Amino acid sequence: MSYAAKAIGVTSVTPLAWVGGKLRILDQTRLPGEVRYLELAQPGEVVQAIREMRVRGAPAIGLAGAYAMALAAQSAREADLPAFLKHLRREAEVVAAARPTAVNLAWAVQRVWRAVEAAQSAEAARASALAEAQRLHCQGMEAERRLADYGAGLVPPGATVLTHCNTGALATGCYGTALGVLRRAWVLGRLRRVVATETRPLLQGARLTMWELAQYRIPATLVVDAAAGVWFQRGELACVVVGADRIAANGDVANKVGTYTLAVLAHVHGVPFYVAAPISTIDLHTPSGRDTMIERRRPEEVSHLGWGWGPDSQGLPAAPEGVEVDNPAFDITPADYVTAVITEAGVLRPPYQDSLQQVKHE
Amino acid sequence: MSYAAKAIGVTSVTPLAWVGGKLRILDQTRLPGEVRYLELAQPGEVVQAIREMRVRGAPAIGLAGAYAMALAAQSAREADLPAFLKHLRREAEVVAAARPTAVNLAWAVQRVWRAVEAAQSAEAARASALAEAQRLHCQGMEAERRLADYGAGLVPPGATVLTHCNTGALATGCYGTALGVLRRAWVLGRLRRVVATETRPLLQGARLTMWELAQYRIPATLVVDAAAGVWFQRGELACVVVGADRIAANGDVANKVGTYTLAVLAHVHGVPFYVAAPISTIDLHTPSGRDTMIERRRPEEVSHLGWGWGPDSQGLPAAPEGVEVDNPAFDITPADYVTAVITEAGVLRPPYQDSLQQVKHE
Repeated sequence: MSYAAKAIGVTSVTPLAWVGGKLRILDQTRLPGEVRYLELAQPGEVVQAIREMRVRGAPAIGLAGAYAMALAAQSAREADLPAFLKHLRREAEVVAAARPTAVNLAWAVQRVWRAVEAAQSAEAARASALAEAQRLHCQGMEAERRLADYGAGLVPPGATVLTHCNTGALATGCYGTALGVLRRAWVLGRLRRVVATETRPLLQGARLTMWELAQYRIPATLVVDAAAGVWFQRGELACVVVGADRIAANGDVANKVGTYTLAVLAHVHGVPFYVAAPISTIDLHTPSGRDTMIERRRPEEVSHLGWGWGPDSQGLPAAPEGVEVDNPAFDITPADYVTAVITEAGVLRPPYQDSLQQVKHE
Repeated sequence: MSYAAKAIGVTSVTPLAWVGGKLRILDQTRLPGEVRYLELAQPGEVVQAIREMRVRGAPAIGLAGAYAMALAAQSAREADLPAFLKHLRREAEVVAAARPTAVNLAWAVQRVWRAVEAAQSAEAARASALAEAQRLHCQGMEAERRLADYGAGLVPPGATVLTHCNTGALATGCYGTALGVLRRAWVLGRLRRVVATETRPLLQGARLTMWELAQYRIPATLVVDAAAGVWFQRGELACVVVGADRIAANGDVANKVGTYTLAVLAHVHGVPFYVAAPISTIDLHTPSGRDTMIERRRPEEVSHLGWGWGPDSQGLPAAPEGVEVDNPAFDITPADYVTAVITEAGVLRPPYQDSLQQVKHE
């Protein structure tokens, strides 16, 4: 089957676009039940959308942050350059702090800030902000397609591959990282099936990955997080491919909670464990996973099913009222469990202390 | 604090009782929101309650099956002993097949059947059936208290202990197995805190274990299944205690899906992994976990949140319509990962091939 034939009927997934001077985002809290777009005109609206996970996934958050800077520049009234920059500096701090764990957000905001800072006038700075956000978006698309090409080469023919959370176009605003690898492997005829973990508490696997895979017509099986072990035991998994929110200098990976457990299972079963992430995810200023701040989110995400998404955002109580909940959004996978890191510049192997530094400095 | 002082305000948890010629069960699909009892007068109603998991947990299912036999004997109209026995034999087969994985159900039904078969008249058989069911219930209570005593000795002072699914009074109809161990450790002042996994898809941990622990006033933290790894990484867990649905002759343990993953994590982190189960759970006719039939349940349990329980039993769609789901109810933990098996006859250690056989033949 050719690519063109496979593409018939494929719905395009456009989670993030600059349309008519506003940032249009696909509201991911409403998926899979409803495809609803939000038009955001103010940086504060973008910050809120990031916090409420209407846009989520480290790279997509980064792009949303970049566009938030463009919106901030657009709505800043100051004609005087120093006053304009002061205003934008404040906005940059607020936007960068919308979520703490993903390094891409601070990185993208910083990129736009530098472009703004270099401008000769407030007017030029305004144009620079949007241009830089759009450049990041284009670069992201190109980078993820390269990443997907590199990663697809690691997927053996006829593979069943496990993935966690959502790392597709919805997560990046572009082509996808781990799911991009699987999309590419599918197009190349190497992929048989994706096994997607539902990814509690917010069910990005069930709600978003299964939805994306359905758009791409890729065969997929949904399992609860705790059932992944059964697939390892059956010996049916060729590899695991996940994304990353932050990769420390030593190769430790911060990613959606549950990633560590999958890495341990992969290790015990001798299944390759790949992390697919753009170079912007690598943070050489964080020496190891121990130094990564792990966001703890609201207990209601666990105690109330569907809390924060779906038609009734209050959710269905699934535990007695007032129970104590521990809800870390991420966990740390030690570098030892990571077979390779797939980036847009190639596949990185241990020792990561060297390979990450090299790719970052190229 | 004395036991009596701690007991103040403790709500009794009576999931299963013979009241006025009927089996009264606490409908576990309504917890934690509603404490609702069902009165079952026919064996078919018990079978349905078992299938719908209104009563669940291997030992409680066994007791429910035993009482279903008492109900069958009570409602059988045959005055002639052979006809009566023929009728009851048929009922026994239906009851024993209500759920396939738990060995206790077939075992308990067989126990009642043998008592019935030994009777000299239909009238005597009727009385024997109920007496045997009640004897099983009393024996269960005594056995689980002994089991809890043995198990509590393994919990070090000040321990934080991880458990999975629900293995309390709700699961056994008596005192509890793994959770019985923790109840006893709490009374003895050895337990600091329970970490309970929510246990998707049916959330027995969130709905039932957290509810039971609240009744006993035991401090507890709820986590999603995928977050257990974080607690191992933090080094805060003294041990893991789980139940079992079936223990094979070689010590392989069939238990709620996710158990295997916790055992692997415990192994990698050097944390003791204990299985608490009555001797009736040990099945010497099953040579290994490979020979255990694993029940696959309906996809809606995964794709629809709250499906099968809660006020709206249709649940909230959490995945695109018609997705493929793999929903194994159990998994197999190889004996190598099991530090000890806690029974009412003592703590069994490897090699399980020997210790299980010995305890079973005592």
